[in-house]
Amino acid sequence: MTSKLINRRDLDFVLYELLGVDGLTARERYADHTRGTFDATLDTAYAIAEDHFAPHAQKNDEQEPTFDGTRVHVIPEVREALDAYIEAGFPAAIHDFDLGGMQLPYVVAQACSGVFTAANVGTVAYPFLTNAAGNLLAAFASEEQKRRYLIPMLEGRFFGTMALTEPQAGSSLADLRTTATPAGDGTYRLAGSKIFISAGDHELSDNIVHLVLGRLKGAPAGVKGISLFIVPKFRVAADGSLGPRNDVALAGLIHKMGYRGATSTMLNFGERDDCHAELLGEPHQGLSYMFHMMNEARVGVGLGAAVLGCTGYLHALDYARNRPQGRPPHAKDPASKPVPIIAHADVRRMLLAQKAYAEGGVALCLYAARLVDDEKTAPTDAERMRAKLLLDILTPIVKSWPSQWCLEANSLAIQVHGGYGYTREYPVERIYRDNRLNPIHEGTHGIQAMDLLGRKVPMARGAAVEALFGEIAATAAAARDAGLGDHGAALDAALDDLRGTTSTLTSVAGQDATLFLANATPYLEAMGHLVVGWIWLRMALVAAAAPPAEGPGMGGDADFYAGKRAACDYYFRWEMPRIAAWTGVLKALDRTCLDMQDAWF
Amino acid sequence: MTSKLINRRDLDFVLYELLGVDGLTARERYADHTRGTFDATLDTAYAIAEDHFAPHAQKNDEQEPTFDGTRVHVIPEVREALDAYIEAGFPAAIHDFDLGGMQLPYVVAQACSGVFTAANVGTVAYPFLTNAAGNLLAAFASEEQKRRYLIPMLEGRFFGTMALTEPQAGSSLADLRTTATPAGDGTYRLAGSKIFISAGDHELSDNIVHLVLGRLKGAPAGVKGISLFIVPKFRVAADGSLGPRNDVALAGLIHKMGYRGATSTMLNFGERDDCHAELLGEPHQGLSYMFHMMNEARVGVGLGAAVLGCTGYLHALDYARNRPQGRPPHAKDPASKPVPIIAHADVRRMLLAQKAYAEGGVALCLYAARLVDDEKTAPTDAERMRAKLLLDILTPIVKSWPSQWCLEANSLAIQVHGGYGYTREYPVERIYRDNRLNPIHEGTHGIQAMDLLGRKVPMARGAAVEALFGEIAATAAAARDAGLGDHGAALDAALDDLRGTTSTLTSVAGQDATLFLANATPYLEAMGHLVVGWIWLRMALVAAAAPPAEGPGMGGDADFYAGKRAACDYYFRWEMPRIAAWTGVLKALDRTCLDMQDAWF
Repeated sequence: MTSKLINRRDLDFVLYELLGVDGLTARERYADHTRGTFDATLDTAYAIAEDHFAPHAQKNDEQEPTFDGTRVHVIPEVREALDAYIEAGFPAAIHDFDLGGMQLPYVVAQACSGVFTAANVGTVAYPFLTNAAGNLLAAFASEEQKRRYLIPMLEGRFFGTMALTEPQAGSSLADLRTTATPAGDGTYRLAGSKIFISAGDHELSDNIVHLVLGRLKGAPAGVKGISLFIVPKFRVAADGSLGPRNDVALAGLIHKMGYRGATSTMLNFGERDDCHAELLGEPHQGLSYMFHMMNEARVGVGLGAAVLGCTGYLHALDYARNRPQGRPPHAKDPASKPVPIIAHADVRRMLLAQKAYAEGGVALCLYAARLVDDEKTAPTDAERMRAKLLLDILTPIVKSWPSQWCLEANSLAIQVHGGYGYTREYPVERIYRDNRLNPIHEGTHGIQAMDLLGRKVPMARGAAVEALFGEIAATAAAARDAGLGDHGAALDAALDDLRGTTSTLTSVAGQDATLFLANATPYLEAMGHLVVGWIWLRMALVAAAAPPAEGPGMGGDADFYAGKRAACDYYFRWEMPRIAAWTGVLKALDRTCLDMQDAWF
Repeated sequence: MTSKLINRRDLDFVLYELLGVDGLTARERYADHTRGTFDATLDTAYAIAEDHFAPHAQKNDEQEPTFDGTRVHVIPEVREALDAYIEAGFPAAIHDFDLGGMQLPYVVAQACSGVFTAANVGTVAYPFLTNAAGNLLAAFASEEQKRRYLIPMLEGRFFGTMALTEPQAGSSLADLRTTATPAGDGTYRLAGSKIFISAGDHELSDNIVHLVLGRLKGAPAGVKGISLFIVPKFRVAADGSLGPRNDVALAGLIHKMGYRGATSTMLNFGERDDCHAELLGEPHQGLSYMFHMMNEARVGVGLGAAVLGCTGYLHALDYARNRPQGRPPHAKDPASKPVPIIAHADVRRMLLAQKAYAEGGVALCLYAARLVDDEKTAPTDAERMRAKLLLDILTPIVKSWPSQWCLEANSLAIQVHGGYGYTREYPVERIYRDNRLNPIHEGTHGIQAMDLLGRKVPMARGAAVEALFGEIAATAAAARDAGLGDHGAALDAALDDLRGTTSTLTSVAGQDATLFLANATPYLEAMGHLVVGWIWLRMALVAAAAPPAEGPGMGGDADFYAGKRAACDYYFRWEMPRIAAWTGVLKALDRTCLDMQDAWF
């Protein structure tokens, strides 16, 4: 059976042919690895995802977690899947050998995460939140905290959460109210309420380690007064043994459109004034710690959206190949046999669009994941700095472009199925509901737009955006020399358009910040479409240069590369022209939304 | 409390100021009506929708109908709501006084239907399918059939369905297999299976009258051999009394993403070879009868999508006005008070887009509904013929544009709510799930595209598309004389673009039907965006000419008209530029999708 999660041939193409990930084994940190160990890890991820994660995805949706006032009930298949995941060592995939980890490159670990996510977004939420919390502990916790909290997380005995959002504050972290009071013994007593905390309560692990954003009593107002705290569900003694239940109360579960298998919780800390908390790292550094991990968390969201695009696409492709219906325009004899619907040009349009969005999204996200590796392990300072700049500018795009367009891909997957796609008998409607979360969490679409235009474009005097534009220009030039000159010219034209647009916008930033940022969202979308065009052209260049192993029509490499070329053609002919509609608004410094009055709605 | 269904001021604006519906009372058929009777009917619709339909919309979604193997169970609130609907006379709203009807213009009845749909799409499915079946009976049934089937439907005692789709055939009606064999007494015995039959079984009415597409035994293959049959759930004797249960079996309920309150069924006719059926009208005319009603059914779907856009928009607007969060870019002092999120330009963008999509969609659909009236009751042959041409060319656009863009509006409504919008505590996630059906049923998006380009554009030697282009050109000219010259010029430019695109496409229709139709979908989308631009400019012209009753900022007419002008500005600056991306593909006669090979995916 061919996997309907992510096309493995495509994943290999992106990792090795596009990104040259096997070259990372030349670096000291990954010297014990080979392409063979990477492949074996991916094989294991596919096997566990197919055997343990995918089979209960629908059940996890239909029988979402419940709270009886005391305990949270989760279907047993979740625990079984997580046992397999833990048994295979995935919780510590990227961590040091010293900590019991696999010391894998981040990009390889992310590829594996993508496979699990494509199989079951609900179940993966538990380990993925644990991974995010674990990465923060690895970076900023004391040795003692690592021993008591991080090691059990890497071993799969403790799970973790990220507790940022509060009901009254939403995206506005400046308005957080959770407060920590010194207890006199170096620990704190925490009080506050958090909402939308994924995996915030369950009985899947021995303990849950919440990383909570809050304020030390008397801290400065706004984001400068935010600290990060470790708050376990059960207190952990110095010897690692579990103590009494901490004062963390589940106020209720949130019932969502999708992602239903993952508990989403409202948590109250300190209802009985006895919520024990430890400071993580230094006081008032909470937000900078979060930002340290933000790029990776956001790459993870983008990849999650992209792989949902992939699995929806593969389901639609399978349906289109096997569903006979209708006849081509030139053969309307009703006595003739109906054709599989993939024979209809409009169905091929919907499949090509999905391929362009989903495979483009995966390539973009894994490119960014490789930048995470390069930021940490590239041989020279200059390479590491360039990787950091590229990652910083790309992060809002990597988070938001797949969240927007791979949701659209899932809508097209439903459409290919016709009426069946709207029923709960086929997985595409669930995948679409699951994916609708991605433009919201980990910074909404609008927040990403403000981050891109308001922070990342001006950062380092424009060096980040210049680095990105330089990469794009180089690809456009390479295309001219490789028989893809039309697309190279189109990429150059779009790049010029975005350069001009960026200049126009930044020229008003100083005198009118409100006007500068008013249309940040179309800027994000135009940049996103440009960047994915660049990624597609890079893929087409690889495909054009690769010697096909066998002839066309065999379902082998020649067809695979022809598909890459065709999807790139689709992207350049159908998608790139959208950019001008966004940049037109931007270059005009359009005030329509800014000037709209409340009373006129 | 302000209604969150459809802004009543906007509905009045469209009906009276834009479409001059009160002028219909000059026609003989509507001579007993006045604007007062129209208003009173709308008042009643709002009252019943608010009091009886909206309150159980969420419950209807959470507790969808179930089938215990014998009976279908529906929550009791549905019956109560339908009692109020029937009591007020809505089942016979458009029918003759002679039949006990209200003899209302179709456009007024559709406005009322929109109000009910905005309140609860699940519950309205029962009467709306009945209306569709009733309209066919009114047009084609014998007097005897009308007496036995239609009259009880108009009285609300019988409900109806439209049973077209079969599991193996989907959109391809040529492949229908349901077969009718003469019983020798003028009736038939029907055998076949139907799927996706909304309101196909329930105990909400004394009887269910299925109108079933099938073939007479020995009929020609394809669509030329399709007839239409009346198949009651309980047989009806000559005196109207109910006889034994007919051989119509519920094979199962279909579980859907949304629209959950409406039963969607698989029905088996003739499992025991005893399914009694009557021919409706003439043999082999089934498809032409369906086409007779198709325009109205498709206008109904478009309007349903548009009013879901409206109610989502009004919920998002209310949330945005009442949710304090964040500060404007120029006021970042964390000690300052957070502002309502409507103060943020990006939130206003999302609200303006929703307003543009939803109000534009409603105006488009009610314009088409008025064409239905004009086709039947305009004073002169020429006017009736022109109305028919405009309705024919517009129908695929009216069905599909709101289905696409008002779904997008609902996605933006979720986004305005942030994380809360993704939860089932707020109605916008349900509305979004409900609306996702509309691009699928009553002819998918792709089917509408084929209808527009393949049938409607060439029809009557292009007279329909020329009539539409003529209307658009007239509005562009009027804008130049009314201070809206920029938008008039932009509309003219887009019209020229579509004229050229249409010529390019039709010039290849004769020699290569496959190439002609390959990119029908972007043609549909480009035409849709042009047409809604035209509608918005017409609305802005009305708003510009209207004398405001009081000053700005009072929430009165001046603000309302300013809002119309601003939404038109938004549409022309942000939406019209999308057209060029679609027409570029079309004018190039792009073969990317057509040439894509199965093996390359």
